[in-house]
Formats: sequence, structure tokens, C-alpha cells
Amino acid sequence: MSARAGILITGTEVLTGRVQDRNGPWLSDRLTELGIEHAHTTIVGDRPADMLSALRFLAREGVDLILTSGGLGPTADDLTVEVVAEFCGREMYLDGPLEERIAEILRPLAKRYPQFDQEAVRESNRKQAVVPRGATIIDPVGTAPGLVVPPADGTDGPTVVVLPGPPRELQPMWRSAVETDAFKDAARGAIEYRTAMLRMFGIPESEIAATLRAAADEGLALDELEITTCLRRGEIEVVTRYEPPAQGTYDALVALVRDRHADTLFSDDGTFVDDQVAQMLVDGGLTVGVCESCTGGLLAARLTERPGSSAYVLGGIVAYANEVKSGLAHVDPALIERHGAVSTEVAEALADGAIAALGTDVGAGVTGIAGPDGGTPEKPVGFVCVSVATREGARLTRSMQLPGSRADVRDRTTTVAMHLLRRLLLGESD
Amino acid sequence: MSARAGILITGTEVLTGRVQDRNGPWLSDRLTELGIEHAHTTIVGDRPADMLSALRFLAREGVDLILTSGGLGPTADDLTVEVVAEFCGREMYLDGPLEERIAEILRPLAKRYPQFDQEAVRESNRKQAVVPRGATIIDPVGTAPGLVVPPADGTDGPTVVVLPGPPRELQPMWRSAVETDAFKDAARGAIEYRTAMLRMFGIPESEIAATLRAAADEGLALDELEITTCLRRGEIEVVTRYEPPAQGTYDALVALVRDRHADTLFSDDGTFVDDQVAQMLVDGGLTVGVCESCTGGLLAARLTERPGSSAYVLGGIVAYANEVKSGLAHVDPALIERHGAVSTEVAEALADGAIAALGTDVGAGVTGIAGPDGGTPEKPVGFVCVSVATREGARLTRSMQLPGSRADVRDRTTTVAMHLLRRLLLGESD
Repeated sequence: MSARAGILITGTEVLTGRVQDRNGPWLSDRLTELGIEHAHTTIVGDRPADMLSALRFLAREGVDLILTSGGLGPTADDLTVEVVAEFCGREMYLDGPLEERIAEILRPLAKRYPQFDQEAVRESNRKQAVVPRGATIIDPVGTAPGLVVPPADGTDGPTVVVLPGPPRELQPMWRSAVETDAFKDAARGAIEYRTAMLRMFGIPESEIAATLRAAADEGLALDELEITTCLRRGEIEVVTRYEPPAQGTYDALVALVRDRHADTLFSDDGTFVDDQVAQMLVDGGLTVGVCESCTGGLLAARLTERPGSSAYVLGGIVAYANEVKSGLAHVDPALIERHGAVSTEVAEALADGAIAALGTDVGAGVTGIAGPDGGTPEKPVGFVCVSVATREGARLTRSMQLPGSRADVRDRTTTVAMHLLRRLLLGESD
Repeated sequence: MSARAGILITGTEVLTGRVQDRNGPWLSDRLTELGIEHAHTTIVGDRPADMLSALRFLAREGVDLILTSGGLGPTADDLTVEVVAEFCGREMYLDGPLEERIAEILRPLAKRYPQFDQEAVRESNRKQAVVPRGATIIDPVGTAPGLVVPPADGTDGPTVVVLPGPPRELQPMWRSAVETDAFKDAARGAIEYRTAMLRMFGIPESEIAATLRAAADEGLALDELEITTCLRRGEIEVVTRYEPPAQGTYDALVALVRDRHADTLFSDDGTFVDDQVAQMLVDGGLTVGVCESCTGGLLAARLTERPGSSAYVLGGIVAYANEVKSGLAHVDPALIERHGAVSTEVAEALADGAIAALGTDVGAGVTGIAGPDGGTPEKPVGFVCVSVATREGARLTRSMQLPGSRADVRDRTTTVAMHLLRRLLLGESD
């Protein structure tokens, strides 16, 4: 039987959404890689009773492992370790070497904030050296140690892996935790799964449902595949999880999808459109620049998100005001006068302006109405125009109506621009 | 006794983090506004057994209401309605008028995608008109209807509010759901809470812990306040929830924090630094522009995030390549040669360049090493220089070492720039 795990995210700030949880999803991926089944993620506030009932719920679900994130800080609302000790039936003690280790970590911090009371800092953090007896300690990356806590001797129940909330601490500490004997004991029985991803753009979700029904009609053993479809940033993702013997069934499904949706399927190997655009720019030795209005810098930010992007992104112009469109981005004011700032003509001029002003091989131009104000009957909120061009004169231009909030429109517009760049770099032109 | 609620987020794509859940936090805020206590958010994949056990867990916790999001789509992995019907002990039926209503909604979609099989679309969506008997139907905003499902007659248990996954559908449908009699019946006993927020920048979290201990030592009744502190985007947030009679205690706490942390406390009314900068620009009739390197467009994107920002943001230059720094952003190439592209001198030149090139009253310049490559012993990854200036010659410049990943460094740098803009607009200058 496969090992199972549950994830418990703690923190009133996460429950109420003031802080976005990135740990649940990240840990879920790691569990899948290890072949450990992940059934539940539960989020609770900083209340010991709620934390304890969530731990007990996961235990009743029969999980072998519970991963917790958060609640290891120096303030009094950080209670995870105490609650886990109670749940596992283990008493707490002050670990001397650990206290010393934390004091050592705090020394540079003390230099950075000399104006603050150092005794207060030490007292706040001594709390972090009080841990359940019998737990394996994971060295801190920040100041909070992690723990792998097995059930008390002679009792049954899950092993709890206690990790801090900040992702840059949690991630390396997770890698240490999986190497401990206590973790390995609890994770026995993990079985191998494969996960594969198809990404499509420009197709409604119902059409995927129809294709899956067609696959079943053709006799494909879809019950061997756990298929999830979802919308993300304007694209459709089809994720399939399966055991290795079902590889043939998955391959047949991919062949069918490719057959029916050749024009919209753009990734079958996990790559994002961003990866593909970056790779084609690198392979072609090409540079890119953008002139963007409604996206306000998001397209340049998306192109520079990847390490090493300075090899092909020279820069961008955020041409928010019309004076910047004409002054820096080479857009003829008469063109704006004639067609309006939000028009395919101005989008094209912005793409050409990017090439001219930034000296790049490829340019992208974006203009639109992100809302909530500024819409008209002819050009309502969500109307955007995107153009991409090469120095040699190849060009793709599209205008469309995007749904959603200001943030949605701005984000989706960058997705449209990335897909146009992809098609342009593949050699398409209007 | 206060009414209590739990939230159940469904979807393998959310559990595994391919899609970020925005509904749990949003619904949590709405519950707080209504005075309904929110103890748990549980995330499960698209497996009926896991969904059912999560519903039963929340029921055992004694909640009066369960809100679900997701799993109402047309594909076979969308099973929420069936599972909720089973949980509530109610049979399913095809609702004729609802089927007609959904068909009507699909007509424009059919026009948008004429190439796809319309019968397949209708069949996929007929499924969405099958609902539990006795449920109150919430009109769809997309194609999926919502539901308010009370427990079967003669039985006890929570009322389940079933909502779709996309936030722009869920949010208006939630507002309809709270108006139904079925919801009001279940939410009886809600009591009023107040929530207040303090935001600080440039202070370690342990210092807040020391201040809270000092408050307790001074005899403040902190047990009347539910205080949570957390780090967000490089700032510290202190959120306090309390019942109205504890207002005096909260006011005393704020006075103490203000006394001890006057220089770092920048918001006590829920405003973000972004709101404050925007308001000061509007009030002063000032315009702003940016020249940014390592943030690659994120600072301009942050400044243009708010509706109406075109009133004061003229634009930006993403000066990624040195040629763009000198060609468009007026940075003397000799300065880059002498001090390096990542230096306070170049940050100052970029701020001045923003004012000159974009014609603004205020300029911000950013340069740094976002990593993971490009660091040196003198200027390691995370070293950033930020400068802000006015046309009249006021100026603030800082360099610092930021922790975290490439994404962290880029994001934190925008926070530093926003705080420097705030101080500059308040009249500070080096």
C-alpha cells in the first residue's frame, strides 16, 4: 500500500489571505515526486484547538505523514511545536546545543539592528530551542529549527514533519528532513507515479471534455489515468497522473489530443510558453524589447523573470502617457489622434518603436483598456491590442476582448503577447 | 453563541498548486465581516471520498456553514454537487428551467467558437443543471449555478454553500447567496468583530514580540485581543481582531507601538505604502516615472496596479542592457564604466534619467543583482541600489543586501523603492 500524507498550513495571516500560501503546493509537488499520495491540505489560524483538531482529522484519515508549515517564530502566537508535541504525546525540553546554535545565527542580525535590545532578541528566540523529546532536529536556515516527530513510543499514528513558514527556509529544510531516518521510516511503501502535462491556448474547456469522451468511445482505458483539466492565466492545462504500466494509454491519449487540437496544443513536456519563447530567442541569437501601455511593465517583468534573460532582453518602455508613446516609443501623434491610443495601428507602431528605440531584433507592442474606468461602447474595458514584429518585417497583430478584473486583463494580455511572440519566432506572419 | 463556518476548496490543480487559490482568503474576509467565525480551510483534490471526509470533518467541528469553491465545471472530474448532495442526504434531479437558463448563457460562447461541436458543448453543460432537491439555486455568472443546500429535513448538520472556482464568478454569486433565506437561517448567531492592522517597515519581528511583552508588563489586557504578526513583502503586519468592548485596550496598544516604533510604523488604518504614495502624488498634483534594471518592469507595474494611476504615472524605462541605460535613460557610459552598472551612482543617474526622459516631477532609479548568477564578492546576489529624486533636487538613495530568491529580490526591491518614494513625498532628503 502506498504511503499517504496530509499537509497542515498554520497562520491566521494565511487563513485570512493576507499572506499567500506557497508551501502547500510546493510540498504537494515534492510528495508526488516521492510517490507519496497527498489527499488533504488544511489551513488553520493560530489557535491551538483548531490546529489539534486538524492534526487529528488527518490522523483519522490514516495518513503516515503530516507536514506542517508555519508557527515557529519568536512571537507568542507561534505555537506549532507545542501543539505537535501534545499531538504526538511527547514532552518538551530546552535543547542546550540548539539554543547555542540559534544564538550564533542571531549574531549577524544583532549587528544589522544595533539599535534594538539584544536581550529581548535572545529571549524571543530561546523559545525556538524548546522541542519535543525524541524528535529529530532539522538545522535552521533562518532562526527556526525544523523537526521530524514520530509518535510516542508504543503508540500508533503519523510522523509529523514541522517546517517554518518562509518558503526560502522551508524548501532547503524539507530536503534535509527527507534524509532523516525518522522520515524514511514513516514514508515506507511509497509507490512510483508519473505526472505529465499538456498545455493549450485558444480553446474552451468544454472541448477538452468532448475529446476525453471521444477517447473513452475509442476504447482508451481512461480509468488508468487521473486526469485534471484547469484554466491558468488564460491557458488550459491537462495534468495526468498514472502508474508506469499505464504509459501506453497516456501516449494514446496524447496522440488523440494532438490529432484533434494540433493548432492549440503548444506544450506536451511541461514547458511554459515563457520557456519556449526564451529558448527560441537564445537559439536564434535574437534580442527582444517591448513598448507596453495597459500592462504597465508586466510584459517586460515576465520576459525578465527567468535567470539569464539579460542575454536576450535589452529592455522596455512603459508608454503609459501618450507623450511617452510619441516621445520615446516613436509613435506618430497623428496616428494616436486618428485611431485612438488603443488601436491595432498604435499597437503595431509600439512594436516597431520597441525595435527602433531599443535596438532589438524583435519587438512587442501592447495597448488596451485594463479598467475599471476608461471603457467606451466601441472599446469596452478588457479590449486590448497586441502586435509583435521582427526587424525584417514579419508581423502578427491581434485585438480581442478579455474577461475579468483590471489585474486579470493585465495578466492575460501578457499571455496573449507571449503566444504571439512564440508564433512569430516559429516563423508565422500575418 | 457565534456562528461558525468552514471553507472547502476543491480541485487537484489547487491542491498541487498549479492554480493559486484566491477564494479561501476572500471568503474568509467576507465571513469576518459578517461576524461568522472561520476556523478551517481545507483543500482537497477531485476525489469524491476525500471531499466527503473533509465535509464530515468540518461537520464534526460543529460548523453551521460550509462554503465550497470549485468542481462545478462541465468535465467529469467536476463532482462537487454530487458529493454535497450525498453529504446533505438529498437526491439529485435535472432542473428544467435551469437547463434552459444555461443553454441561453452558452449561445454567445457558441458564436465565439463556431468551429466547435455545439452538441458537445450542450451535453457537457447539461450536467450543470442537475442539482440536489430542496437546494436554493444561485444564478450563474459564468455557466455554473451555485447552490445553498440545507441538511435533509429532520436531520442536523451544516448548510453548504456551493460556489464555482473562478473568483470573478464566485464573488458576485457569494453576494447573492448571503441574501437567501437558507443562508440567513444557517448564519444566525453571528457576532460583531473588529479587525485592525498596523504595518511597519525596517524592523525585525522579534522587536514586535518584545513590545507585546512590554504591553503585558504595563498591565494591558492582551487576552482581549487576538494578535497576529507576520512578514509580507518585506514589511511586518500586526493584525488584531477583537470584540467592540476591547476598543480601549486596542487603542492603548497602538499608542504604545507608536511610542516605541514611530520611525518604522507607517500605517495604522489598513493602507498599503502603495495607497499612501498614490494619494500623495494625487494630492500634490505630481507625476512619477521610473528607470529600472533588475526589477525588469515590476516597479512600473506596481505603480500602475491601481485604477486611475494614469493620472500620475507617465511611464517607465526598463533599462536592462547598458546601452538602454545610456541610450534612453540618460546615464553617462563613463559612470557605468567607473562604478559598475550596479552602484548608487548609477541608481541616482537612473532616477534623474526618469525625470529627464519621461518629463516627470519625481523619478525612481533601481539597479541590482537579482541572481542567481552575476554576483561578485563585493556585490553579491541580492545587492541592490535604489534612488528617488524630485525635479527640484531632493533625493534619497540606499543600497542594501536583500535575502531570498531572484523573485524575492525583485519583489522586495519594489517595496524598498515604494518606501523611499513615500519618505521623499513626505519631504525627507539625504
